Amino acid sequence: MNIRTDLAVEARELHPEDAQGVESEEARYGNITVSRITVTNEAGAVSLGKPIGKYITADIPPLSEDAGFDSEAAEALSRELDDLIPKDGDILVAGLGNNDITPDALGPKAASRILATRHITGETAKLAGLDGLRRVAVLAPGVLGQTGMETGEIIAGIAAKIKPAAVIVIDALASHRLKRLGCTVQMTDSGISPGSGVGNNRKEISKSTLGIPVIAIGVPTVVEATTLAYDITGSEPDSERLSEIEPRGSKMIVTPREIDTLISRAAALISHAVNCSLQKSLSPDELMMLVS
Amino acid sequence: MNIRTDLAVEARELHPEDAQGVESEEARYGNITVSRITVTNEAGAVSLGKPIGKYITADIPPLSEDAGFDSEAAEALSRELDDLIPKDGDILVAGLGNNDITPDALGPKAASRILATRHITGETAKLAGLDGLRRVAVLAPGVLGQTGMETGEIIAGIAAKIKPAAVIVIDALASHRLKRLGCTVQMTDSGISPGSGVGNNRKEISKSTLGIPVIAIGVPTVVEATTLAYDITGSEPDSERLSEIEPRGSKMIVTPREIDTLISRAAALISHAVNCSLQKSLSPDELMMLVS
Amino acid sequence: MNIRTDLAVEARELHPEDAQGVESEEARYGNITVSRITVTNEAGAVSLGKPIGKYITADIPPLSEDAGFDSEAAEALSRELDDLIPKDGDILVAGLGNNDITPDALGPKAASRILATRHITGETAKLAGLDGLRRVAVLAPGVLGQTGMETGEIIAGIAAKIKPAAVIVIDALASHRLKRLGCTVQMTDSGISPGSGVGNNRKEISKSTLGIPVIAIGVPTVVEATTLAYDITGSEPDSERLSEIEPRGSKMIVTPREIDTLISRAAALISHAVNCSLQKSLSPDELMMLVS
Amino acid sequence: MNIRTDLAVEARELHPEDAQGVESEEARYGNITVSRITVTNEAGAVSLGKPIGKYITADIPPLSEDAGFDSEAAEALSRELDDLIPKDGDILVAGLGNNDITPDALGPKAASRILATRHITGETAKLAGLDGLRRVAVLAPGVLGQTGMETGEIIAGIAAKIKPAAVIVIDALASHRLKRLGCTVQMTDSGISPGSGVGNNRKEISKSTLGIPVIAIGVPTVVEATTLAYDITGSEPDSERLSEIEPRGSKMIVTPREIDTLISRAAALISHAVNCSLQKSLSPDELMMLVS
Repeated sequence: MNIRTDLAVEARELHPEDAQGVESEEARYGNITVSRITVTNEAGAVSLGKPIGKYITADIPPLSEDAGFDSEAAEALSRELDDLIPKDGDILVAGLGNNDITPDALGPKAASRILATRHITGETAKLAGLDGLRRVAVLAPGVLGQTGMETGEIIAGIAAKIKPAAVIVIDALASHRLKRLGCTVQMTDSGISPGSGVGNNRKEISKSTLGIPVIAIGVPTVVEATTLAYDITGSEPDSERLSEIEPRGSKMIVTPREIDTLISRAAALISHAVNCSLQKSLSPDELMMLVS
Repeated sequence: MNIRTDLAVEARELHPEDAQGVESEEARYGNITVSRITVTNEAGAVSLGKPIGKYITADIPPLSEDAGFDSEAAEALSRELDDLIPKDGDILVAGLGNNDITPDALGPKAASRILATRHITGETAKLAGLDGLRRVAVLAPGVLGQTGMETGEIIAGIAAKIKPAAVIVIDALASHRLKRLGCTVQMTDSGISPGSGVGNNRKEISKSTLGIPVIAIGVPTVVEATTLAYDITGSEPDSERLSEIEPRGSKMIVTPREIDTLISRAAALISHAVNCSLQKSLSPDELMMLVS
Repeated sequence: MNIRTDLAVEARELHPEDAQGVESEEARYGNITVSRITVTNEAGAVSLGKPIGKYITADIPPLSEDAGFDSEAAEALSRELDDLIPKDGDILVAGLGNNDITPDALGPKAASRILATRHITGETAKLAGLDGLRRVAVLAPGVLGQTGMETGEIIAGIAAKIKPAAVIVIDALASHRLKRLGCTVQMTDSGISPGSGVGNNRKEISKSTLGIPVIAIGVPTVVEATTLAYDITGSEPDSERLSEIEPRGSKMIVTPREIDTLISRAAALISHAVNCSLQKSLSPDELMMLVS
Repeated sequence: MNIRTDLAVEARELHPEDAQGVESEEARYGNITVSRITVTNEAGAVSLGKPIGKYITADIPPLSEDAGFDSEAAEALSRELDDLIPKDGDILVAGLGNNDITPDALGPKAASRILATRHITGETAKLAGLDGLRRVAVLAPGVLGQTGMETGEIIAGIAAKIKPAAVIVIDALASHRLKRLGCTVQMTDSGISPGSGVGNNRKEISKSTLGIPVIAIGVPTVVEATTLAYDITGSEPDSERLSEIEPRGSKMIVTPREIDTLISRAAALISHAVNCSLQKSLSPDELMMLVS
């Protein structure tokens, strides 16, 4: 099967008939439509090809076309995140992906705008008017080819050391449909599924591998070329066709030409939504100023 | 017609029967095959869809896969460039494209490794052991959306000021075939054709717009998604299909997942070949050291 | 004389007695103090060591310490710029300096946040709701060592091509006092003086070299080590001392350790002030969104 | 006492009489002079202000002035490293510092050129002709202000997970003398001392905190402004003078104006020396190619 998607909402489209163990509902925040899919049991997980958990998908105005920062979208994302992120305890935020490859750089770029606060304590915090902040640690672990380590190994090692209550991972995703690139944000409490992501295929990063809740936030930034080919022709490419689409076995990806605008706006949007969810003692405007 | 290519060798493949006004020959340097196509008259230009001029295409080992710098390929490119670049006078090298978009960043990244020497004169040059260098100026003019100016306007303005004997432009290209991404270098004395390039479509930059020879060097780094779709189906996409491939009119591009490796190696290869062609008083090893 | 400063207000401090041909006044915008020095004739120019013109200096809260974007400071700068920038005609904004050296990167980083609008015309502008914008072109010309060209040559060449009504140059400056690093913005209609700036010493860029008004905006980001030494000892360093401060003739500079925060905030502040002065049809909030 | 230095060789200069517990010898490799200081006991540690261990200091041609990569220096460093790095077992290389601040970016930039090999195993390695490589993991952990975590915590967490035989940390250093900036490489088996480094002052990272050998490699890239002031005047600055040198308590640093060239060349030199020491099955030229 050549349709590759990291989005639960697209997996659902591909199997609309499989209702068992999959529940869904919709919500609206002004112009933002939110779809909440819950995989409630193993049957649902098998039919959807996604682990048990909540999958919240927000449809937002296209990030590569719209005229700037969308505070309405940020607020909608933040409110939905409130349901996924544990209320108490330290949080470790990890921006996954390769900062040197534009469509894979969402995680590192978002991480660079997450307010790291774990070290701001005691007198320092008071003097800066920053007491009452939730303790947040931030990491951009890089990718396997740069580090020789699986991202999950790095996060597990650090989590064992600093013992956060939960991990939030931010990652660029692959979608089935080109129309969803930069128009969709997926938030889930099921972590990172094996094989997802843009650059290196990820190993699983989840509560079952780390022992603590893993909230994953992603934006689709690529469609795999083989998925597009399948979609256009409606059938598996034969081996000759496949060698045209992936010459010498090279993976090919499809992205908008304005991918850099898409990535920097997605990073700004998601980091702001996460900061708002984590730091309730500061207003959105104060948070925006602190990271600028 | 939905096949978009900046490569003369691919335009030739699409119209193999149109022999009038188009001549071609092959050469070999070790493992490197070089194809030289010459468009000799207007008939050839119309049939090929490329202006009159020489188009030299080198087939090189895949930049995103091979294990490092390929000095054999660099030497082959340098020797072919010797035939295109005027022997005397100052040279202006311009790296076209957007440094923030990986597949469009070939030009700026190559420009950052071109040895700028125009200011190294007199005693300074002698003291540094660098007298006898050819005078070279280097520019990364950015793209229309960043500057509000056409790249050709910027180059024309600077060329009018510093009066080089020729301009060398380095640019990322679009090809017809995915298999050519990162495996091909095109060098031409016909400059930049209207509508070529990856990011913003370029306006013409050539001897007829600048009044001096314009040598263009490019590597294909993307295939347009519409070209891939045409290629797969063998027919024009209808409007429904088109709106799937280019949702909301967004241009979509296909690149290798290892595009960052491809770009940095292509930039190193081309800048070294240009440096070797321009600075005959230094050895390839000395030049490599000076830019590291 | 070993005191090096690009600030008129510091030149004035060094020669407080020389009142001839130099006028000054103060203004306040909330917490922001603005000092306006006018060099009215050649006598003033000689005594101050700065060309005839207006020098507006705003004292702002320390950029490397304050907790984020300071919209009060931005508004004060914007209002003062209104007096310096011609009301009509196209504007060329040039961000001087080397993007790879943090204390010299103010110009390029500010330029990347200036709204380029010269190409947004006709139907495109209307569709984007952006008709009525002032036409602005933007450039980051790099430095002599990268390009082989004087910055002034590049700007002159482009200005001759696109014929703006005025040029605005943004540059990092050297100051006499460490306490002014990141706490001062200087705006002048006298352009760039010979020998000013952080990285390469600039050649003059002014109305007399370009034929059109040149407004220069700068923030001190470094103190030269020899200036600090002179200041500490109150006398010229002898040759032995000098060879300790500038071993092998290497220029040494003093900067805050938080220089990266200083630079990115200064770039955000100045670009926003310039955007507000140039685009009166948009609100500060709309402008902030368009560049984010 | 206001003299701040991370170099054992400078601590030795400051206390030449304290011979107890400190041994030293010299060696030469062509133009490169190497000084080996060994702190043999607690008395030596107290007198030198450096922990017990070997401190190897190589005097190399100035990185910001010399004309390119210095393979003689690389070979000398690599040979000295052979004595410090354990012969067997996995190695974790960590590039300390802030990639956004030029003088503090040595660690991250060197790390990006260290060959990560831990994941290249089995068939993959054989196919790539890379079997027989030593297993190396690489990390750029960022700084406290970005992550909210001490660098030592991050390294400890990951080391506990992947269990390397030793850690190599690469870091920018502060020196006493301006003449040593970019002319000196220090290699030690005593790890990172508390308070060393350029940006954030480091906590100790050593065998006693990690339980495995920690080899630290550093190049001085800054002199603290207070150290320069002390050196010039020969006495502690009084509080008025201090408030001029560190206005509002801001730490000020002195660097060469050509700091970006210094950093990129130091990163290339040190990463190559480390790669050569770690990967004996590949030649220096093969290693150079693999990271380009």
